[in-house]
Amino acid sequence: MPYGDAMTTRTRSEERRAEIVRAALEVIAERGYRGASMAAVAERVGLTQQGLLHYFPTKDTLLVAVLKERDQWDAVPDSQWRLDLLASLADYNAMRPGIVQTFSALLGESVTEGHPAREFFTRRYVAVRASMAQVLRAEYGERLPSGLTPERAAPLLVAVMDGLQYQWLLDPESVDMPAAFRDFLVLLGEA
Amino acid sequence: MPYGDAMTTRTRSEERRAEIVRAALEVIAERGYRGASMAAVAERVGLTQQGLLHYFPTKDTLLVAVLKERDQWDAVPDSQWRLDLLASLADYNAMRPGIVQTFSALLGESVTEGHPAREFFTRRYVAVRASMAQVLRAEYGERLPSGLTPERAAPLLVAVMDGLQYQWLLDPESVDMPAAFRDFLVLLGEA
Repeated sequence: MPYGDAMTTRTRSEERRAEIVRAALEVIAERGYRGASMAAVAERVGLTQQGLLHYFPTKDTLLVAVLKERDQWDAVPDSQWRLDLLASLADYNAMRPGIVQTFSALLGESVTEGHPAREFFTRRYVAVRASMAQVLRAEYGERLPSGLTPERAAPLLVAVMDGLQYQWLLDPESVDMPAAFRDFLVLLGEA
Repeated sequence: MPYGDAMTTRTRSEERRAEIVRAALEVIAERGYRGASMAAVAERVGLTQQGLLHYFPTKDTLLVAVLKERDQWDAVPDSQWRLDLLASLADYNAMRPGIVQTFSALLGESVTEGHPAREFFTRRYVAVRASMAQVLRAEYGERLPSGLTPERAAPLLVAVMDGLQYQWLLDPESVDMPAAFRDFLVLLGEA
């Protein structure tokens, strides 16, 4: 097979994989991971279940691809994060409720026994808290105006973002997520 | 049937129902609601599925009983809540991870399409935000030291409690939930 054709095949296969991951994101948003079936994902992309298994041999391998995809969207190098960018991230999230729904449903499920996303979220939060502590240190130094250290304020910053997402998904008319997150930044910065 | 016997029967039936609700709480903590089966609940209380259906004719009616039970534990009249009691609630929750797990798994699932707990959580958060605004007003008056109104700080208070629960359930060694919640109260109260 000439080189050019091999590349085309790989590209098509990668496009197909990306399409499957997008379909899986939608199905998880609608039903959660435990409620999602490979049959539903296959149907959404016009594949047979057998055809889907060619790309992702198990439901868990598909979940791993979904979680990797999710992390790539927000992949900003640690050194580039700033508090005001977090407010922009809240604005951005408010424009993509489907993605926030997938993530929030998976986080909720991840605390149940033996869930395949549990280790992913546990490691992710260790990394995110460390990254947020760095952002806070860059902004405020060793002590925030309240006297808290960056390491003690970091889990609160993460908790507010996650917790507001649930309130907003359930009731977007009552909860203005980006405005509420900016209110929290006011609390952090008050002297 | 003499009055006394009827009472005994009702009491036994109520005890049985309470036992089933406790089993359902455990099964939901382990598998989420969509992953929970009536068969698993029945097995845990030593009933046949047919026997379980006598008490709860559908999975949804059992869920309603679970959510009602949950709300009764925290039933403190609005006028009795104070900020320092919320810190005690965080202490108390840290001693009952199973219950927090049930609740967090259900909240996560509730944002998926057509989930039977969605309306419950939506209404609950409207009520909890109003109740927390009242607590903050009693403590600080019309403006918190940061300048936020009680109504704008309330969703943040609720979000921190929920968000910390996920971080703590995933990684209790790294996250001291009650201490982190008290740190948030410091942020709220700083002038």
